[in-house]
Amino acid sequence: MDINYVYQMIKTEVESVEKELLSNLDSDVDMVNEVASYVFESGGKRLRPVFMILASKLAGYSGNRAIVLSGVVEYIHTATLLHDDVIDGAKFRRGRKSANNVFGNDITVLCGDFLYSRAFMNLVKDGDPKVQMILANAAKTMSEGEVFQLVKTAEFSLKLEDYLKIIYSKTAVLFSACCEIGGILGKIKEEKVKNLAEFGKVVGLAFQMSDDILDYLGEPEKTGKKPGTDLNEGKMTLPLILLRDLADRDEKKKLRDIIVSESATDEDLAYIISLMEKYDIKAKAENFVDDYVNKSKELLKIFPENEYRDALEFLAEYVIQRDR
Amino acid sequence: MDINYVYQMIKTEVESVEKELLSNLDSDVDMVNEVASYVFESGGKRLRPVFMILASKLAGYSGNRAIVLSGVVEYIHTATLLHDDVIDGAKFRRGRKSANNVFGNDITVLCGDFLYSRAFMNLVKDGDPKVQMILANAAKTMSEGEVFQLVKTAEFSLKLEDYLKIIYSKTAVLFSACCEIGGILGKIKEEKVKNLAEFGKVVGLAFQMSDDILDYLGEPEKTGKKPGTDLNEGKMTLPLILLRDLADRDEKKKLRDIIVSESATDEDLAYIISLMEKYDIKAKAENFVDDYVNKSKELLKIFPENEYRDALEFLAEYVIQRDR
Repeated sequence: MDINYVYQMIKTEVESVEKELLSNLDSDVDMVNEVASYVFESGGKRLRPVFMILASKLAGYSGNRAIVLSGVVEYIHTATLLHDDVIDGAKFRRGRKSANNVFGNDITVLCGDFLYSRAFMNLVKDGDPKVQMILANAAKTMSEGEVFQLVKTAEFSLKLEDYLKIIYSKTAVLFSACCEIGGILGKIKEEKVKNLAEFGKVVGLAFQMSDDILDYLGEPEKTGKKPGTDLNEGKMTLPLILLRDLADRDEKKKLRDIIVSESATDEDLAYIISLMEKYDIKAKAENFVDDYVNKSKELLKIFPENEYRDALEFLAEYVIQRDR
Repeated sequence: MDINYVYQMIKTEVESVEKELLSNLDSDVDMVNEVASYVFESGGKRLRPVFMILASKLAGYSGNRAIVLSGVVEYIHTATLLHDDVIDGAKFRRGRKSANNVFGNDITVLCGDFLYSRAFMNLVKDGDPKVQMILANAAKTMSEGEVFQLVKTAEFSLKLEDYLKIIYSKTAVLFSACCEIGGILGKIKEEKVKNLAEFGKVVGLAFQMSDDILDYLGEPEKTGKKPGTDLNEGKMTLPLILLRDLADRDEKKKLRDIIVSESATDEDLAYIISLMEKYDIKAKAENFVDDYVNKSKELLKIFPENEYRDALEFLAEYVIQRDR
């Protein structure tokens, strides 16, 4: 199996989601539609819709609600991206200028608000209180997670547990919601819905950890990203936490100084990467992530083997691929 | 009747709303609760809850949903204030440092998002699709209105119609929602609910127009605000629009230059105020607003006369008072 095969399996649905995303941009304020179209036309893998659609099919559902709710999830996700890019002062997103870079911070914040409320309008129309609560709660958790991350900026002693809480909130909770909703759409047993929710959560954690590893140890020609972004933003992520816990006293002191200063230079980054090589952090962090991926696959064993289960298992591997 | 009498009439409910506002600040991220408490403890007149509660009582309702939904409305309102203050770079709000001034722009944007999603969680729990749609739509309209206002910044030829669209979106739509929901809670006839919605809208428009007049022509010792904020932000508001349409050719040219420059000096403001005196703009704008207030009172005539109708009629006058 490869990623194109997966997209091919649910081609009709993914195309319908793309249409859904644009069809709600019906504001009578042109600028709102312009900003939102700019963002959605820049593409993206639509991973969350793909997870929701596959989970719904695994649960035996194949109706239109998976399209509408995928649109809702992608709106919520995009709203958080818009606000995050404003907060981080990001200049680029998906290889194009970020919305804040093109339209300004103020309009970008407000278009994020528009997408949130447009998402909730569609949720109200869909009319399922359980699904509504899952997504309202996910949106709440995401905003809390971002605040928690900011509060923990440049905190060298950040516990692994708090790191996991941050990435659960900013990434895993929405993946979990997508898979759980897929199960709910199929009206399958509570236990199976729970496994899908847990599957989405564990995959989401692995996805974010893998991203955080690539930020230090990825090859820019494959990832398309300049390394060290997290360091510049004072974020303590998995590879840095593992390194901190293995470094000797002198190294630890130097590391702490770099993090606390909140102004790491290129030399600082090179030093950290060399230490990561010394302590074999890449392999250790990847092992850590692999455990999550394996756990996620275990959770799907409650379902009979079929092409949708295969596809979800494949995706669990795919989201942590080093050259995705 | 005076404002204290109105608050006394619904004292229990207003106190319950205050409790409701703080009771949902249950985030396990302390900073989120801290920012939200900071904002809610700084007070405010809770005008929107007061309108909702009085409208619900006029409609014969007196249960707890008016409290919960008042909390929802105040959360949505506060979320927009937080985002607006970030966008405008506001330093103060309600006589205290603004949240963005104390906690920074990034945390303030995210706490706005938290309040939005917390509001929607409570809306989901309340479980009334009609009410949910009214408020999701109001939130959407508010974000659109703010974008529209930004797009129209420094547009000297702004049509009165577009000005009304802006203030409808940023202020009146939520007042309208409050009064409409009050009617829905009371399960009164569609026609009466419509009148309440229209009443809220017209009062909201009058309220915002009155605010916009005070921004040029209020007495700082009464309003507690430095005049000319709207001018500095390039906003074309009612008094400036009326002045533009009455000014002679030379004055108009000078006015246009000031607006388009987007950097009005104190002398520019003094010049504009002197022109407003010359053309008697205060009286003209206040007449304009009075027409709205009178219209709003007409809309309540569909209800039997009682203390709640009296209180709403009083409030329609109160929100445009020059020294409130």
